[in-house]
Amino acid sequence: MKQLFHTPEGVRDVYGSECERKLYLQEKLQKIFHAYGYENIETPGFEFFDVFSRQVGTIPSRELYKFFDREGNTLVLRPDFTPSIARAVSMYFHPEDLPVRLCYRGNTYINNSSYQGRLKESTQMGVELIGDPSVDADGEVIALAVELLKETGLTEFQISIGQVDFFKSLIQEAGLSEETVATLRELISNKNYFGVEELLSSLNLPEKLVTVFSMLPRLFGSLDVLEKAKELTDNPNALRAIERLEDIYQVVRQYGYEKYISFDLGMLSQYNYYTGIIFQGYTYGTGEPLVKGGRYNHLLEHFGNPAPAIGFGLVMEQVMNALERQNIEVPLMRGKLLILYPQEGRSLAITIAREQRSHQMEAQCMCMVKEKTMEDYISYGKRHQFTDIICPRSEEEIQIINLYTDETRMCSWKSFGRQEV
Amino acid sequence: MKQLFHTPEGVRDVYGSECERKLYLQEKLQKIFHAYGYENIETPGFEFFDVFSRQVGTIPSRELYKFFDREGNTLVLRPDFTPSIARAVSMYFHPEDLPVRLCYRGNTYINNSSYQGRLKESTQMGVELIGDPSVDADGEVIALAVELLKETGLTEFQISIGQVDFFKSLIQEAGLSEETVATLRELISNKNYFGVEELLSSLNLPEKLVTVFSMLPRLFGSLDVLEKAKELTDNPNALRAIERLEDIYQVVRQYGYEKYISFDLGMLSQYNYYTGIIFQGYTYGTGEPLVKGGRYNHLLEHFGNPAPAIGFGLVMEQVMNALERQNIEVPLMRGKLLILYPQEGRSLAITIAREQRSHQMEAQCMCMVKEKTMEDYISYGKRHQFTDIICPRSEEEIQIINLYTDETRMCSWKSFGRQEV
Repeated sequence: MKQLFHTPEGVRDVYGSECERKLYLQEKLQKIFHAYGYENIETPGFEFFDVFSRQVGTIPSRELYKFFDREGNTLVLRPDFTPSIARAVSMYFHPEDLPVRLCYRGNTYINNSSYQGRLKESTQMGVELIGDPSVDADGEVIALAVELLKETGLTEFQISIGQVDFFKSLIQEAGLSEETVATLRELISNKNYFGVEELLSSLNLPEKLVTVFSMLPRLFGSLDVLEKAKELTDNPNALRAIERLEDIYQVVRQYGYEKYISFDLGMLSQYNYYTGIIFQGYTYGTGEPLVKGGRYNHLLEHFGNPAPAIGFGLVMEQVMNALERQNIEVPLMRGKLLILYPQEGRSLAITIAREQRSHQMEAQCMCMVKEKTMEDYISYGKRHQFTDIICPRSEEEIQIINLYTDETRMCSWKSFGRQEV
Repeated sequence: MKQLFHTPEGVRDVYGSECERKLYLQEKLQKIFHAYGYENIETPGFEFFDVFSRQVGTIPSRELYKFFDREGNTLVLRPDFTPSIARAVSMYFHPEDLPVRLCYRGNTYINNSSYQGRLKESTQMGVELIGDPSVDADGEVIALAVELLKETGLTEFQISIGQVDFFKSLIQEAGLSEETVATLRELISNKNYFGVEELLSSLNLPEKLVTVFSMLPRLFGSLDVLEKAKELTDNPNALRAIERLEDIYQVVRQYGYEKYISFDLGMLSQYNYYTGIIFQGYTYGTGEPLVKGGRYNHLLEHFGNPAPAIGFGLVMEQVMNALERQNIEVPLMRGKLLILYPQEGRSLAITIAREQRSHQMEAQCMCMVKEKTMEDYISYGKRHQFTDIICPRSEEEIQIINLYTDETRMCSWKSFGRQEV
């Protein structure tokens, strides 16, 4: 019976002021997507397994929620919007319609081990800019991520930018096996300096490569990190990868957001579809990134129509956590009236409610019952964050109780319109 | 490989102007929920199977999408919001916090047989008013459904109201077996007059009951239907059920919406949790109801905290279909600028875009590439519904192309702010 009363592990109900704040923020963020020319797309909550398979390079199969349709095909609850949107753009957009700017908002599902205590359902809002390989596109998308985080009310955050191509050029030069690359990637991602050096010492690589790999977990910080990286290699592809980051910095500077970005060449995503820059947004009070994104120039090939692309997703739960830990308020300004009437006053109550609603007020009607006293209603009104109780006893006798000050005054229906409520 | 390119049967992508209209409508409808004092709640996309089990009385188990969590519990994709919200209210709200008005917006999943050609994923918006057994609550919820449908732009629609208690009182009087009731319910729901009479003739019931059952599929229409129904029975519970409908009519009349409602005593829902009135909203151009709801006074008992309740859900796909079939436009008024710049004009382009965005305009930046001509960009701009192209070649030379009239004019950055775009 326990299962009748609870939500499954890792998912939860959101209600009350938490839900109000969440939806208010989502609407604000959506407006910024539109201001930058992004258009909404909705993809299904589940897709065929192939859309999220290992070849596509999203999260591991064991962390997908899988089930069957009536024909026995394997379906998967969407763990990530990017492959779905890549599929949709390949299906519907001709090359001459590109670039296309799309934004989304919806829930994603990851069946992670519950001992990690992480949510299995989360709300993501994000963008995909498909068909534009330029550094201008990279800069725009990062500037947009900065603008979103500013709009949430956060003031102290950083977008940390990595570059998958730098690492890829070096491992190609080193000629490492796939297995070794996987181990090295994990050690670097975890900033496990000692582990990286131990692995390198077993590999018999040229001195120059040993140095740059062992430095990788330390190559994070401001612009000078890029200078340092250039000194560590003469691999032309690796150098080009660093130049791309320098160019992106210049574009972000034109948006005036350079103080919000930093670089981390040791950042390597778990999503294999990323090809160029990747980035994550962080703030204090939450360990998980608020924003995750990057360039994925080869993902659309899987779906039949190659096109370069870049995008990111913002995780609402992380934003909400950060705001709460940092005591940043989400300003909700709504006048909310409780129109409390005796049975015979119903018609007048409905009239008052309609009039208030036509002035953008929120008005809830409620018929008084014998079992409850006015004190009960006042405490109900306060618990539900009403600003005033309006009690129309008759057209001549309308009582107004301000729930902040507890002051009561009377007016008639005739004079009601001229009163401030 | 086919599965890589397509969405599963019964689910689809929504994008372009369809998506824009859908989201615009949803926001308008949500404002009405708030105006009536309803507060948002979000429940998880999946729940334990028990929440939607046969005892709860939602859709049949074979139409649920089921899968397992890591512990082997059966999870179900939400087919309906009402049981989830009943569970949540039982968990979080004390009796003195009631009544509570909740609204929701999200997708539901029903694994119906695909030959029916129906969508398996649909977007629902709805309300639940929990803790208020009054006829005032019934009337408010029906008035709210009318107001929502009006707000979509539909002008010709009807909310058809049935009363489960009328049928239930009569079958109790007749003492029919559960199996016979199920058959009778289906025949009446399908308005199968002949089938109903054939079944009745085999049952050996008193003449009065035979008459009322055989009349049931015909008892739909305006207020006089209720008069007719009262003449057909002297069962006190059945008469009380009809009086409730008369009282509801009076409340809806106080909202001024009586012309939108009618009665149908032969309407019997597939959801067993309904206890009193049930209702559906219809318009022409779509066979399926736009709105489905009713009273469910015993559902919360299943979740441990009994409370009377009433609610409804509106199916966005049905609303969108109806608007399209009836050629009703959703008015979207957005100024959308394409800021097209040569590489060296990037900084000015970003400045112009920021300024336009601060004036609530939508502005997309795009760097010109050598392979494309201005004609290509104009046709791209028109396909993507831009209103103007702004092309900053230098601070002295900004070209503005109106994409409705194809007129071009020039201005400088200095005079730009004073130009109407």
